[in-house]
Amino acid sequence: MAKAPTVEDVARAANVSRQTVSNVLNSPGIVRPATRERVELAIAELGYRPHAAARRLRTRRSSTIGVRLDPYLGGISGVVLDRFVHALTERASERGMRILLYAAHSPAEEIERMGDLVDGGEIDAIVLTGTSREDTRTSWLQERDVPFVSFGRPWRDDDTGEPAHPWVDVDGAAGTRAATQHLLDRAGSRIAFLGWPEGSGTGGDRASGWAEAMLHAGASGPRWAVEESLGLARDVAGAELAADPAVDGIVCVSDALAIGAHLAATALGRPELPVVGFDNTPAAEALGISSVEQLPEQVAAGVLDLLMGATGNVVVRQGLDVETAYVLVEPRLVVR
Amino acid sequence: MAKAPTVEDVARAANVSRQTVSNVLNSPGIVRPATRERVELAIAELGYRPHAAARRLRTRRSSTIGVRLDPYLGGISGVVLDRFVHALTERASERGMRILLYAAHSPAEEIERMGDLVDGGEIDAIVLTGTSREDTRTSWLQERDVPFVSFGRPWRDDDTGEPAHPWVDVDGAAGTRAATQHLLDRAGSRIAFLGWPEGSGTGGDRASGWAEAMLHAGASGPRWAVEESLGLARDVAGAELAADPAVDGIVCVSDALAIGAHLAATALGRPELPVVGFDNTPAAEALGISSVEQLPEQVAAGVLDLLMGATGNVVVRQGLDVETAYVLVEPRLVVR
Repeated sequence: MAKAPTVEDVARAANVSRQTVSNVLNSPGIVRPATRERVELAIAELGYRPHAAARRLRTRRSSTIGVRLDPYLGGISGVVLDRFVHALTERASERGMRILLYAAHSPAEEIERMGDLVDGGEIDAIVLTGTSREDTRTSWLQERDVPFVSFGRPWRDDDTGEPAHPWVDVDGAAGTRAATQHLLDRAGSRIAFLGWPEGSGTGGDRASGWAEAMLHAGASGPRWAVEESLGLARDVAGAELAADPAVDGIVCVSDALAIGAHLAATALGRPELPVVGFDNTPAAEALGISSVEQLPEQVAAGVLDLLMGATGNVVVRQGLDVETAYVLVEPRLVVR
Repeated sequence: MAKAPTVEDVARAANVSRQTVSNVLNSPGIVRPATRERVELAIAELGYRPHAAARRLRTRRSSTIGVRLDPYLGGISGVVLDRFVHALTERASERGMRILLYAAHSPAEEIERMGDLVDGGEIDAIVLTGTSREDTRTSWLQERDVPFVSFGRPWRDDDTGEPAHPWVDVDGAAGTRAATQHLLDRAGSRIAFLGWPEGSGTGGDRASGWAEAMLHAGASGPRWAVEESLGLARDVAGAELAADPAVDGIVCVSDALAIGAHLAATALGRPELPVVGFDNTPAAEALGISSVEQLPEQVAAGVLDLLMGATGNVVVRQGLDVETAYVLVEPRLVVR
């Protein structure tokens, strides 16, 4: 006997993505009529059945949401993910849900863990963290029709107009834009950006906010790059500041880099040089360094809203209306 | 029909603690013969049955350990508990176990949550944090025969000779002893201690290590107290240092207080005054402040060893041999 057709078979036959098949099944109103017709034809020809009853049986029975928790790696900004887990536990508890933590050291291992938990009926939904453009976990979850939301956008071509899956993220560009504007108002027009090397979606997003604010003000300043390391940031910022003493302030992609830049400026006899970090960690607070606060509590609330909806039940949300498929949290500049 | 007798009934009849009844049932060898006889008599008279089979049925079926996670309160040292949760998740995963997080805002609410989880068969064991001398949670867990280990000692009269329940903790006194010895060797003989106000078991433990090292060296120094607040610590340490400029160094009960003391010393023109903190947080690292590292990863390993034993199964360990009923982790001084 032939294997039962899957969502993937339908997607291949109709030459669309799995997401589109899912949309046709769950929210046909948001799919263009011609596409919808093609998908419905493929569904009929292949005899695909979405097994809604089986899917319902598999979900909504554990009142538990799974989250991967990685080993603690030290560093200054890890506290943001931990605050998110604290807030998620708290908010989920208010809605009668609990958080199950599991460990995994690769996407493949995470998929295996998620498979065990889903098969065992131990979780109703997954919250992914640390998304990337080619994320094998999201396609696995969509294929298995497991409800999930990610902290971190999908990093595809149009995450807001056509989100690949429900997501919540912090608007990094808005944060650095506010930080840059603050320094332009207060310190002078030559504001540097100390960021990470090319290749990080998050890093690029934060750099763009600085670039936009500078462009808008008709100002210019250097862009420096260094790995996420306080010590390296101190070295790089020290060398760059010595070579370019006209810099009036520095917007940084993280608190670790901001602290490094602050220590470098202090060593050069400029302890008052304004520096702004990102993440509003206890370390930045202790040093009196301004920082962009990510509001992980709002991220957690957004994740649960997308996952559970207004009714409080975990729902399969892969066929969400585009308007409600993502939450972009605007961070807040904390001035010290 | 009369209600079946409980462990508590036996304990009352024999005029011993529930712990002793549990010891007689599980590890009679560690109970004094006269006491054992009295308990066995009470068991026989009341017709108490330990229901070992029922207990086994109730446990070992979820491969899950419950841990309460409180809302994030900010502050510098919260990272220690988070590192513990990371490590516990990692170690538990290696042993095929997962961590279930739940929220609760009072001991009563935590007991209610634990009751739901135990009754629903959702957890095999509990890891308690934040223990206190009169802890209603531990007596509830013992009464219900739920396997548990606490991060934090029971704070009774003799936690090592006669532990009230299995526990893992960090030897705070050993940490501050090492810190004090380090400053005595390096900075001079007048070493101050900046601690919390009276009434904290943890704070008293850490103060005692400083007092012992000072006594042993025949040295003396002032003992200052302040709430856990960087700003207050800066104010108090600043005033005390100004009044007592002969102080050669300061051992502190936490990194927040150490950072406050360091900033106060810097403001008084003594940035090189040696200060040692406790918890080895990223903030202390960023400021180059020495600190006592709690090794939460070793605490997590100790908790799982006590809970699961060498065989890897969750076992009811209330009748543990005294020798294996606790783990006291020796912290490590990180010199910067």
